[in-house]
Amino acid sequence: MYEITTVLLNRLIDMALEEDLAQGDITTHMLIDPREEGSAHVVARQDLVLCGREIFERTMNRVDPYLSITHRFADGALVPKGSIVTTVTGPAVSILTGERTSLNFLSHLSGIATLTRRYVDELPKGAKTKITDTRKTLPGLRTVEKYAVRCGGGINHRANLSSAILIKDNHIAMMGSVAKAVAKAREAIDPSHRIEVEVSSLEQVSEALSAGAEVIMLDNMTHRDMAAAVKAVAGRALLEVSGKVRIENVASLARTGVDFISVGALTHSAPSVDFSMEMAARHAR
Amino acid sequence: MYEITTVLLNRLIDMALEEDLAQGDITTHMLIDPREEGSAHVVARQDLVLCGREIFERTMNRVDPYLSITHRFADGALVPKGSIVTTVTGPAVSILTGERTSLNFLSHLSGIATLTRRYVDELPKGAKTKITDTRKTLPGLRTVEKYAVRCGGGINHRANLSSAILIKDNHIAMMGSVAKAVAKAREAIDPSHRIEVEVSSLEQVSEALSAGAEVIMLDNMTHRDMAAAVKAVAGRALLEVSGKVRIENVASLARTGVDFISVGALTHSAPSVDFSMEMAARHAR
Amino acid sequence: MYEITTVLLNRLIDMALEEDLAQGDITTHMLIDPREEGSAHVVARQDLVLCGREIFERTMNRVDPYLSITHRFADGALVPKGSIVTTVTGPAVSILTGERTSLNFLSHLSGIATLTRRYVDELPKGAKTKITDTRKTLPGLRTVEKYAVRCGGGINHRANLSSAILIKDNHIAMMGSVAKAVAKAREAIDPSHRIEVEVSSLEQVSEALSAGAEVIMLDNMTHRDMAAAVKAVAGRALLEVSGKVRIENVASLARTGVDFISVGALTHSAPSVDFSMEMAARHAR
Amino acid sequence: MYEITTVLLNRLIDMALEEDLAQGDITTHMLIDPREEGSAHVVARQDLVLCGREIFERTMNRVDPYLSITHRFADGALVPKGSIVTTVTGPAVSILTGERTSLNFLSHLSGIATLTRRYVDELPKGAKTKITDTRKTLPGLRTVEKYAVRCGGGINHRANLSSAILIKDNHIAMMGSVAKAVAKAREAIDPSHRIEVEVSSLEQVSEALSAGAEVIMLDNMTHRDMAAAVKAVAGRALLEVSGKVRIENVASLARTGVDFISVGALTHSAPSVDFSMEMAARHAR
Amino acid sequence: MYEITTVLLNRLIDMALEEDLAQGDITTHMLIDPREEGSAHVVARQDLVLCGREIFERTMNRVDPYLSITHRFADGALVPKGSIVTTVTGPAVSILTGERTSLNFLSHLSGIATLTRRYVDELPKGAKTKITDTRKTLPGLRTVEKYAVRCGGGINHRANLSSAILIKDNHIAMMGSVAKAVAKAREAIDPSHRIEVEVSSLEQVSEALSAGAEVIMLDNMTHRDMAAAVKAVAGRALLEVSGKVRIENVASLARTGVDFISVGALTHSAPSVDFSMEMAARHAR
Amino acid sequence: MYEITTVLLNRLIDMALEEDLAQGDITTHMLIDPREEGSAHVVARQDLVLCGREIFERTMNRVDPYLSITHRFADGALVPKGSIVTTVTGPAVSILTGERTSLNFLSHLSGIATLTRRYVDELPKGAKTKITDTRKTLPGLRTVEKYAVRCGGGINHRANLSSAILIKDNHIAMMGSVAKAVAKAREAIDPSHRIEVEVSSLEQVSEALSAGAEVIMLDNMTHRDMAAAVKAVAGRALLEVSGKVRIENVASLARTGVDFISVGALTHSAPSVDFSMEMAARHAR
Repeated sequence: MYEITTVLLNRLIDMALEEDLAQGDITTHMLIDPREEGSAHVVARQDLVLCGREIFERTMNRVDPYLSITHRFADGALVPKGSIVTTVTGPAVSILTGERTSLNFLSHLSGIATLTRRYVDELPKGAKTKITDTRKTLPGLRTVEKYAVRCGGGINHRANLSSAILIKDNHIAMMGSVAKAVAKAREAIDPSHRIEVEVSSLEQVSEALSAGAEVIMLDNMTHRDMAAAVKAVAGRALLEVSGKVRIENVASLARTGVDFISVGALTHSAPSVDFSMEMAARHAR
Repeated sequence: MYEITTVLLNRLIDMALEEDLAQGDITTHMLIDPREEGSAHVVARQDLVLCGREIFERTMNRVDPYLSITHRFADGALVPKGSIVTTVTGPAVSILTGERTSLNFLSHLSGIATLTRRYVDELPKGAKTKITDTRKTLPGLRTVEKYAVRCGGGINHRANLSSAILIKDNHIAMMGSVAKAVAKAREAIDPSHRIEVEVSSLEQVSEALSAGAEVIMLDNMTHRDMAAAVKAVAGRALLEVSGKVRIENVASLARTGVDFISVGALTHSAPSVDFSMEMAARHAR
Repeated sequence: MYEITTVLLNRLIDMALEEDLAQGDITTHMLIDPREEGSAHVVARQDLVLCGREIFERTMNRVDPYLSITHRFADGALVPKGSIVTTVTGPAVSILTGERTSLNFLSHLSGIATLTRRYVDELPKGAKTKITDTRKTLPGLRTVEKYAVRCGGGINHRANLSSAILIKDNHIAMMGSVAKAVAKAREAIDPSHRIEVEVSSLEQVSEALSAGAEVIMLDNMTHRDMAAAVKAVAGRALLEVSGKVRIENVASLARTGVDFISVGALTHSAPSVDFSMEMAARHAR
Repeated sequence: MYEITTVLLNRLIDMALEEDLAQGDITTHMLIDPREEGSAHVVARQDLVLCGREIFERTMNRVDPYLSITHRFADGALVPKGSIVTTVTGPAVSILTGERTSLNFLSHLSGIATLTRRYVDELPKGAKTKITDTRKTLPGLRTVEKYAVRCGGGINHRANLSSAILIKDNHIAMMGSVAKAVAKAREAIDPSHRIEVEVSSLEQVSEALSAGAEVIMLDNMTHRDMAAAVKAVAGRALLEVSGKVRIENVASLARTGVDFISVGALTHSAPSVDFSMEMAARHAR
Repeated sequence: MYEITTVLLNRLIDMALEEDLAQGDITTHMLIDPREEGSAHVVARQDLVLCGREIFERTMNRVDPYLSITHRFADGALVPKGSIVTTVTGPAVSILTGERTSLNFLSHLSGIATLTRRYVDELPKGAKTKITDTRKTLPGLRTVEKYAVRCGGGINHRANLSSAILIKDNHIAMMGSVAKAVAKAREAIDPSHRIEVEVSSLEQVSEALSAGAEVIMLDNMTHRDMAAAVKAVAGRALLEVSGKVRIENVASLARTGVDFISVGALTHSAPSVDFSMEMAARHAR
Repeated sequence: MYEITTVLLNRLIDMALEEDLAQGDITTHMLIDPREEGSAHVVARQDLVLCGREIFERTMNRVDPYLSITHRFADGALVPKGSIVTTVTGPAVSILTGERTSLNFLSHLSGIATLTRRYVDELPKGAKTKITDTRKTLPGLRTVEKYAVRCGGGINHRANLSSAILIKDNHIAMMGSVAKAVAKAREAIDPSHRIEVEVSSLEQVSEALSAGAEVIMLDNMTHRDMAAAVKAVAGRALLEVSGKVRIENVASLARTGVDFISVGALTHSAPSVDFSMEMAARHAR
């Protein structure tokens, strides 16, 4: 999580804590002596790829800077079921108060990393093809979700509408042709944006290439046509496959030789992974 | 979405738009004439329960107040695959700019409503049991996710740590017994908070009841013990089942006669549902 | 103040400091050498119940983390006139800059705690009746004001419109009867919200009870009717009295046996209590 | 309220609404048909000076822009007990949802205006003395509270630590003398800040005057000394009295001829005034 | 300004208005009748390239939605000295209140557009070279400043540290060589980020090209070496010149055949252009 | 920078960092080992007056609290070309990530301080005249820009529309005369606001003085008339000159004896000063 800027992380954590703590954890304050200290283990209840240890730690420390947190795995690590991932030590009231919010982050992000790793593991040995994400992320969580994709071995596609030029079917329909759309984008060429275009036939592939596209997204083409496109392009542009990607067809898509396979499900449909937090010991301060 | 306060919705929408638009949709501005007008249909690509039409509309109108939006289904409606759900008319640039963010909301929230409905549909006819959500929501999205649960026919459990007293295993371990924990909470009784306690045996059920618990959560008990608990409590408290709930065992859990079955997966693992946005017509302004 | 979440406190403190400091304390910066160090005592100029020592401390430390603060009383303590409550030591410039904002919090919150204690002290010995607050709080300050009520020995009523169901006269008028209103709320029963209803006659009390209300608010009834209501309800619901409560009639209201007396004045009309901050010593750094 | 900038008002209103509405008004949404329309009167339950009609209106319209609001009194008007102050018409759900937050603003601000007017009314006929407020305001509410003071006929003292130079006892103690402190401030003279100094003897008055103070605050001086100060200063500086001001001694303080009497209680201890909101009519839409 | 997202613009405008209006325009409210209406012309006091008419309009309308604004020039237009650029009509109080903040935006952004145009106009006829900006922008204003560069005929370089890979001297020093640095970046290749590298010799140019750099920034090279680099690269990468660019040497830099010349001064040192706002007429409402 | 409140600085820094870092510094994270440590010197590439060392330091520490920063010059110091101003030591990744944003602040603020100093240095020896700024600042940066003016030896004019009364030509036109406008402002006299009026003739100077203006701004008057105004006023009010001030005519304006010369260019047109950041050493951690 280290790679993500503090300002963004803090805002996300504050938003999540306000949502869950509201006026405070009334049960815990009613029942537990604030001087009670304890330790709690975060335990993986399934095999998983870890993601989010820093956001977990910052969330806990935003609740209480006196909590001390020890991690046993790095982000991106494969964690076997039953492992203790992290231990939190300090005031019991604070541990209980921060538990749900910090676990919600960890479970969601590790869920994405775990699903991404499943896709990556399907790639044939030695294939140059990479798994990328999309902009189909959950509102407010894009930056951390894209970090989770990286933890799972995936590659990030564009961050937002400003960070690359991606000419899609609707743009092409309005411009008249792939060639015209790419050419218009080339005219305005600048040093920082890639030009990518979505095509649906081999003809459009050559059109895109001639017009100077740097990345070509193959939409809904047969495996045979994809392979033909790879041959035709011959490294002069990067090729991406998008749409109808499932865990079952990733390997055969990769074998066509495309550079990227983009998978919306990595971020919009990754099931949460299961962690529990177990109080391990306690003692008066 | 009407039920959710404007202030909260606006904040969520702004956050999501800033994340996706950043410095602006450079592709669209480069290619499309700002005077071009068009219509786009949002089409359901699977059977689903709709949720989020108001947040969709507000998101589009935050991008451009001149977009006009027509809905054909209410939130909570069953929408058959292939249906046009919503039509957006106005400047093509604005439609394309707002597309992804507004669909991201709609797909996630309808995903939750659709999954909730699947659970609710498993309940035996005439059963009084209700499906509830948990606090295992995605950071920042709790209020809209809980609204989606309602759209799917579910009931909301507590909103946050302030809105009800829920005494869990860790609290009980620290207090010494269910009876002591509930009694301490009763001492501080106030007019606005329910007292719920988590128990794992029939003995603890009676203990909780005697101590004055208003809701008793049965954790990890056999179906037989749950049925016995229902009988023993005889309406003097509400009974909730939590943990290891799957679509396959919902019906049999409900048959024990408990009041609520709470399902974390409704919000932490609902797969997104699939919508597409298709440009239907365009014309110069 | 410990019970209130850091995120909320920080936001409140920042808002207050921005309001008072604006572009900075020009007088102090113009006149006082930034290397000058000093100590200042916060002195109670009247008998009072203290509330807000943590928000005082955080406010001072937000101005300058190098200020060190020592408290001599806990929140909720009775402080006799003339006592030194707190001592602040560090850069004189910072003490003078933070003085007004931190005292404004302390004076207002201690004002509420002190007034609440006066009401609580009026309750007859051994009475089970409790003093509660209302939603008549000052905009933006509700959470800290409700904390102050607790410091004064009061109990909090619902935090906001989401945290309990309270059916008031206008709702009943629209629904047709107390019974219909409560029944409709019961239909939608969920594990986390209490159902409270406001009634104005003994008939409505029985109606409410039969319909399953958990808390009944007696509005504008005679003492005799209140006592009758207590007898009729016989512990099957909690009873609350609201409206026209004054310090003079609290004792007699409590003697009717009701569970709660709610007092809007605790938060909307508590006079500030008087503290002064006196520079005690200074020395060059 | 017109005089206060939209940005600030909106932020205050959003903060107050989020605090009270949280996830929504669950009672009202459960019971009232969203198509139901109605009218409600805001009624003064005591004689009062009105303040806050625009913030009331904006709060209601932030809840629902379809509410229409009609005022019968301007801010600053004397409103007799029993008068209808404002009428709100539109969706009943929205009126009930916005009621408490909008009334909380109106009651607090009118409370300040009403108390200020009481002080102003104590001033002898024809006296040039004016009543001013202080920086003893409630956190976050200073700008609207100072507006309320104006509505009550008072004058505002400095808005914050940046808007005027006010040399107080602690500054003087550190500088060594009134003369030195004022002289140092004069050195740095700029076109926008007044220089005010707090003094406690006639000697200090002359010292302050010679050093070029523009406003002199008389602290804790006898009436006789105040009158002497007025005579000595003879219009060459403005004179202010501060501390221990009560409604009972305002008139005699004014008779000393000072320009300003500042009263902290106007903002830190004004009791709320009493309004009720009564549903007047309703009909289906 | 149309191309910039509403959310970002609103935040910027609110920040600027809060800064200038604070508690309100006290002079104007003290002197001008709120019912007075008027018109004011914004007049160009020098030849300039206009930028910021939409942010000007939104600022005025944030002060008062009843102000009506008419523009006579589009953003990017050359405006001769003495021209009326915009006319504002409505309440005089609102015009005077919004004047300074809206002009501050207009003057700064038009200053940047005007300076950019001067650089662009220096390019030899028919040259393919383009003028780009840098990340040397004023804190908080980057998006609008980069829009102003476009209005002046310039091209934007990367928006921020996330939107393109730019390997600079410090990175190369740490990696050991241009080739190693570019190769490492290529390994992680993804569909959305360009790889640019800064070089300072012809050797490094070939190294960069072989390693697969897409954009090469020539730092501090002689004109002769730049021309040689253009020849050697032969269109296989884009070439950028950076550092020590002045209005006097732009033409000769362009003649070397490079693709881009980046100029930090466009945003960090553009002098403001001079507008005045003149009240043209007024009448009672 | 010490004089500026933490809350304001933090907000400004966060805004600037979010703008530049976005989802993170992708180049640096891709290439540099996070365990690499280093030092970097900030070097002045021209003679300059320093301003912004604290905001530089806070920006760096917001990126990474483990960076340690050593300054060699105080704000306001004259720094000769080639001097090392500041040294940053710690993780190389963090230094590179924070470089641009922290330098952007330093270059802009030192640019203002340096320009201000040039104007101040033009003042004749012994002249009492002072250079002041205006409200022509860049949106969002006013407080820090005004601090930079002070570092350059200038004096601040009013912070915003609330902090002093400044009656300008448009106000006078609407009021009918200088005398009427000033008189109306005097009626509402309060302890904290200065009354300043803009005049354009000697007649208006006397009018303003008689009416009680405390500061008189001479607009567009001849040097002879200014000198006459100084004589006529004879210290009974402060005199300010505004408009058409250039570095070339500052000395002669000062010789007229006016108190203040206000210069918009200090903040709206100060060219950035040139700093570089040079990595000085590095070593593994």
